[in-house]
Amino acid sequence: MKIAILGVGLIGGSIGLAAKRDAEARVSGYDPEPEAGARALALGAIDERAETIAEAVKDADVVFAAAPIGWLATIVIEALEHADSDCVVSDVGSTKLALELAANDGRFVGGHPLAGAETAGVEHARADLFAGASWYLTPTQGTSGVLYERLHRLLVSFGAQPTAIDAKLHDRLMACFSHLPHVLANLLVAQGSARAQELSSGERLPAAGPSFRDATRVAGANTAIWRDIYISNRLALIGEIGGTIERLEQVRALLEEGDADAVAAWNDRAREQRDALLGAGLAGETSGEPVRELRASVPNRPGVVADIALALGGAGVNILDMALSPSPDDSQGVIALWLRGETAALRGEQLIHDLGFPVARA
Amino acid sequence: MKIAILGVGLIGGSIGLAAKRDAEARVSGYDPEPEAGARALALGAIDERAETIAEAVKDADVVFAAAPIGWLATIVIEALEHADSDCVVSDVGSTKLALELAANDGRFVGGHPLAGAETAGVEHARADLFAGASWYLTPTQGTSGVLYERLHRLLVSFGAQPTAIDAKLHDRLMACFSHLPHVLANLLVAQGSARAQELSSGERLPAAGPSFRDATRVAGANTAIWRDIYISNRLALIGEIGGTIERLEQVRALLEEGDADAVAAWNDRAREQRDALLGAGLAGETSGEPVRELRASVPNRPGVVADIALALGGAGVNILDMALSPSPDDSQGVIALWLRGETAALRGEQLIHDLGFPVARA
Repeated sequence: MKIAILGVGLIGGSIGLAAKRDAEARVSGYDPEPEAGARALALGAIDERAETIAEAVKDADVVFAAAPIGWLATIVIEALEHADSDCVVSDVGSTKLALELAANDGRFVGGHPLAGAETAGVEHARADLFAGASWYLTPTQGTSGVLYERLHRLLVSFGAQPTAIDAKLHDRLMACFSHLPHVLANLLVAQGSARAQELSSGERLPAAGPSFRDATRVAGANTAIWRDIYISNRLALIGEIGGTIERLEQVRALLEEGDADAVAAWNDRAREQRDALLGAGLAGETSGEPVRELRASVPNRPGVVADIALALGGAGVNILDMALSPSPDDSQGVIALWLRGETAALRGEQLIHDLGFPVARA
Repeated sequence: MKIAILGVGLIGGSIGLAAKRDAEARVSGYDPEPEAGARALALGAIDERAETIAEAVKDADVVFAAAPIGWLATIVIEALEHADSDCVVSDVGSTKLALELAANDGRFVGGHPLAGAETAGVEHARADLFAGASWYLTPTQGTSGVLYERLHRLLVSFGAQPTAIDAKLHDRLMACFSHLPHVLANLLVAQGSARAQELSSGERLPAAGPSFRDATRVAGANTAIWRDIYISNRLALIGEIGGTIERLEQVRALLEEGDADAVAAWNDRAREQRDALLGAGLAGETSGEPVRELRASVPNRPGVVADIALALGGAGVNILDMALSPSPDDSQGVIALWLRGETAALRGEQLIHDLGFPVARA
């Protein structure tokens, strides 16, 4: 099998490594930046460097376009032009509808692996990047069944979980669960900046707990990537923003009425919704057991996190997620831990208690 | 000195312990729940249990009302009724303007320690809860200078940093930096729930990365506490919600225009604003050095977090904050680490690299 990779960064390089390991494929790589191609070759992520897209896709059985999202349509269309009639062409972009409309060809199947978004560069590529990861595919009525099946089988050999989904629904899910949180993070820092300017010089901002920091971690994420994501998924995102504005107006009305019971009911519903979403696998949970949250008060010195992680690790209790909130002078803090299931929570609580730290359920 | 504490939970109990340790005070405690009072007495957080507010505040030099926020006005007014003419009465509520209007008395000084919001119950009380913590005070033109100074001095002896602030500005800062993120978290889970219902049965939610999870950690926070916070600070919060709606409408317009450069500029500005806010002490940073973020790809097994934390701890590199995002099958994940300053970042990067994990700047 010959596989062509157009754009050999983290994702493209990892596809190359996986294809060589899992499908014994010959991998041809094209990248407009010669250095990226040379690195990929040196790392063994590709077997040969092509000088053009046409050369890379010649005789290929599967083509992956793994370039920045703004370039994907151009690259996919050129690949389809030069690829054989029984070659399947896919991509790894994080929005799907626009590309599907642009590449209206039975050989094209849009794809989106949920992996590797956090780092970049072929030097971080690895064959097991997709192990256990969802890999969305967006076939249409016109998609060749034979070619779809070939692509699906290849992704399964990588250890991924291919999942067919309607391109429009895919984009709406991404808009809600990934792009909207980024928009809100950007807005929150803008609003915080405006408030901070009301302080007289010398007045300090409040260290207002972890909620603002958690909500703004992704503010101003890598512009080179996010500009294109926002633009390419703007139709779905505009819809989600409209929904958020409506919901904000409802909460504002609730507060204007000052009805404490209604506010309590709204907040209780949010907790149920959060638990249901976590339970439904949002955090990558596959077990049916609910996630439990512990909060421990700890001195904020090097080694405390290690003590807790070691104690839990040594007892086989896996930490799904954690967040440390330091106090203003860094002398102490609260560490929040998320564990899977009641048994793990009870064990974790006991272990942290035994270390001498106050611990409670959140 | 006699100190009276009305409501002996985590905050009230910690004030009692600190007052005994740092001010050699005699501490009288009142709590409407006899069990709470008994526990506080057993733990040494108070020296004597009072049966009524009047009994507790008799001959007291300083009174702290540390009850749930919905009860504070009633309690403070009753305390002022029975307290001596040279007794200072304060509270620990997280919103200040409403109480200031209700307790219009020269002996009253509103207060808000930024500590202890994460756990509850006198059993977690400790004398050093306020060490290094900001403690807002909201004096007015009518406040007695002598009484204000006594309260201020007492808080300094606890290790806290009392900061005078206008009650209205205080409430607006809290609305922006604490209450608004909670509102947005509640909205995001509501919106995510609506999207999840569009999936056909059996279709799984996307594991869409850490942004949604980070942004919704506080969704549906403890209703008993948050109902009262929302209601008591609703005027300021309504203002912040209005600001967010306006900003959302601006972003929507930007996306509707589809201007990639304008979107990029908006995102870049958000990054500058986030950095400026972090630099200005939002995360409790007092050093001028900027916060650096590292992201490492790690196998998600017990002990990995410990390895990293131990390596950094052993080298004296303190971890300000961390977040672990597992992959769908929990086999791998990305750990984000926030460190203070370039030197720590370089050292941390090297240490994680030496452990064999891919690591990059975010």
